[in-house]
Amino acid sequence: MTPIDLAAKLSQFDATWTPHVVADLNGQQVKLAKLEGAFVWHDHADEDELFWVVSGRLRIEFRDAPDAVLGPGQIVVVPRGVEHRPVAEPTAEVVLFEPATTKHTGDVDSERTVRDLPRL
Amino acid sequence: MTPIDLAAKLSQFDATWTPHVVADLNGQQVKLAKLEGAFVWHDHADEDELFWVVSGRLRIEFRDAPDAVLGPGQIVVVPRGVEHRPVAEPTAEVVLFEPATTKHTGDVDSERTVRDLPRL
Repeated sequence: MTPIDLAAKLSQFDATWTPHVVADLNGQQVKLAKLEGAFVWHDHADEDELFWVVSGRLRIEFRDAPDAVLGPGQIVVVPRGVEHRPVAEPTAEVVLFEPATTKHTGDVDSERTVRDLPRL
Repeated sequence: MTPIDLAAKLSQFDATWTPHVVADLNGQQVKLAKLEGAFVWHDHADEDELFWVVSGRLRIEFRDAPDAVLGPGQIVVVPRGVEHRPVAEPTAEVVLFEPATTKHTGDVDSERTVRDLPRL
């Protein structure tokens, strides 16, 4: 029950597209990530995913819907099964809230897939 | 998949201690609340609860642990079954992340209990 300072945690790593777990609750996890440029197209078959932009600008592309463009203090929920591609313009710091089972590249096995997420 | 601007949503209500639901995912909800002064002691038997302070200062008292004191950009998870009392000093705007089933006063039926949470 110790407070977690998100800016302090973000200062502890530089790696992009590598979610770091900072809290667990109800089978869900809070993760921090630094994003730069475009990620891979992917979806999560069984998991909704929340993005909360802390700094920078994030555009999320969808196959059949307008892009979601987010700045600091804005959130979006990507429903399960919806293919999406996050694109940081040019960088963004985000908080992710999603089930502990969620893989950040979904069912896509990419060179960017990180299998054991670090914890802060 | 429309972005949600948290500051804009917070500007839409004044009521304190009345969580407003802004998003649903994975059986969990994202809620916004304005807090002022002390709330009631309560716990949630089966639900962990995340507080994220957006503005102001929030102290959370526990029966058997040091207070958690949070400012903007700081979060804390109160585990299920842990009795707690949030105290805004003097006010705070917070985001709550918790199961959709969570009642904000837990099993305590108080004059402050809001049964059907508003949605924004």
